[in-house]
Amino acid sequence: MTDTKSRIAAYAARVEQYITEQLAAIKSRRGALATDDVFAAMHHSLSAGGKRIRPALIYAFCEACGGTPEMADAAACAMEMSHTASLIFDDLPSFDDDDLRRNQPSCHKAFGEATAILAGYGLICAPFEIIARDPHLSAEQKTALVQLLAECEGVNGMVGGQLMDKHFENRESVTLEELQTMCLGKTGALIQASCKMGCICGGGTDEQIKAAGNYGKSVGLAFQIIDDILDVTSTEEQLGKPIGSDAEENKFTFVNLLGIDQAKTTASAVSAQAHSELDCFPDAAFLHDMADTLLVRVQ
Amino acid sequence: MTDTKSRIAAYAARVEQYITEQLAAIKSRRGALATDDVFAAMHHSLSAGGKRIRPALIYAFCEACGGTPEMADAAACAMEMSHTASLIFDDLPSFDDDDLRRNQPSCHKAFGEATAILAGYGLICAPFEIIARDPHLSAEQKTALVQLLAECEGVNGMVGGQLMDKHFENRESVTLEELQTMCLGKTGALIQASCKMGCICGGGTDEQIKAAGNYGKSVGLAFQIIDDILDVTSTEEQLGKPIGSDAEENKFTFVNLLGIDQAKTTASAVSAQAHSELDCFPDAAFLHDMADTLLVRVQ
Repeated sequence: MTDTKSRIAAYAARVEQYITEQLAAIKSRRGALATDDVFAAMHHSLSAGGKRIRPALIYAFCEACGGTPEMADAAACAMEMSHTASLIFDDLPSFDDDDLRRNQPSCHKAFGEATAILAGYGLICAPFEIIARDPHLSAEQKTALVQLLAECEGVNGMVGGQLMDKHFENRESVTLEELQTMCLGKTGALIQASCKMGCICGGGTDEQIKAAGNYGKSVGLAFQIIDDILDVTSTEEQLGKPIGSDAEENKFTFVNLLGIDQAKTTASAVSAQAHSELDCFPDAAFLHDMADTLLVRVQ
Repeated sequence: MTDTKSRIAAYAARVEQYITEQLAAIKSRRGALATDDVFAAMHHSLSAGGKRIRPALIYAFCEACGGTPEMADAAACAMEMSHTASLIFDDLPSFDDDDLRRNQPSCHKAFGEATAILAGYGLICAPFEIIARDPHLSAEQKTALVQLLAECEGVNGMVGGQLMDKHFENRESVTLEELQTMCLGKTGALIQASCKMGCICGGGTDEQIKAAGNYGKSVGLAFQIIDDILDVTSTEEQLGKPIGSDAEENKFTFVNLLGIDQAKTTASAVSAQAHSELDCFPDAAFLHDMADTLLVRVQ
């Protein structure tokens, strides 16, 4: 497991370096536009840390399909930027109204709401530019990546899940199925797409792309269940945002619906399902370990 | 000029039909996600009318390069969705705080701020999905379109211009050069990209793509100058939003900096420059007329 953690850390360092380079490249093309603070806002949110799980999944599946990390850089950077954009919007007053994100002021707290929205807007668009410009991928690979990224973020993915989550605020109760649908959109869609995008970068087969999607669907669900558990069991310092903020707003979470013990059991079961999807990859040891590592967070 | 107007109207009808079909296709893929109101919000903003100038430019340049309208449908729809997303954000309380858009409640007035933001988010992502899925374009064309669209919307295009515009609110004065830079981003970038995207859809040469970009840059600037003029000379009914709303907020406009007469003269001069870019197109009559039609709005 130590090896797994250091490999995840190495992927995180790699994507952070690549993100820095891409942001600098974009800034170098801005001409006369006076946009220092929107670049500062994007940098603020991109460099606030985080586990960089989505890029790690992209690199890992790319390598599991026989690709090199260079082939996955653009997709990994694109996905982390897209994820960061979603966090900026999620923290806004009309959504979770969070002042802190990863122990730092959320983007709108640090830069004001208009600049934060524009930074988020920029971080939705930049990934498509970065994929389109990448020298390591074919036009067919780029087209497939663009489609996956747009769909996992859009109204049938993360945005749709975010909307359902917002509606839950006005509900007396939700079913477990509704909660799952919401999570598969809000947090699961990007994780599922990351796994598939990694296979596309590495030249994987259709069978591998499909299996990666199923793995990602399970891992994404387990990941969200565990986030709900951490929200009530962590300290504010560990979590990087106020503890119990979900419970406080009377949100429906897996913990609220299932209780902590059953939530942990469900996370284990869903995680086990992820393991069963990896047979079509010649070397899946790291992908097995990643699924376990996600679960270890709560033990 | 009557022919020009009816051809623009025909393009508008065509893209509106295509947008309706694409929105229905996306909705049909949503699975269990309960997202009726974000689709309603997207539809509200997309169907509020407008001149559909950007799609018309895409169709016109595609045909000027020898392409068919079918080749331009995806790009035209994508651009109009992207433009509509920018209007949703532009109307938000942290930006222009407009209650009306094209004689109808702005998206956040009709659906609330969170749903409006999510509708805008969805309308930024959907265009990339639509381009990637299009059956009429090659992967190389799709990659080029994705790059152009992402860059014209992003931090070096519309978003960057929007940020500069926002900063102008706190300024004592701005130079004509700063105002032009802001406009070339905020409104010009999408118009310029539309012209280039049309050439890409129609299989145009590099020379044609470049000329189309220059034409679009001039037309976009003329278009904004004329918008500023209309803001002070139109009735609320004609304009579809409160008259003088730009002047009221003490914004810097071409009219404020130049006066109405000089602004009209400048619009004519910039428009003339657009005409001079069209020599490399075998049949550019319609493109000449379009530049004139944009100017006729204020006569």
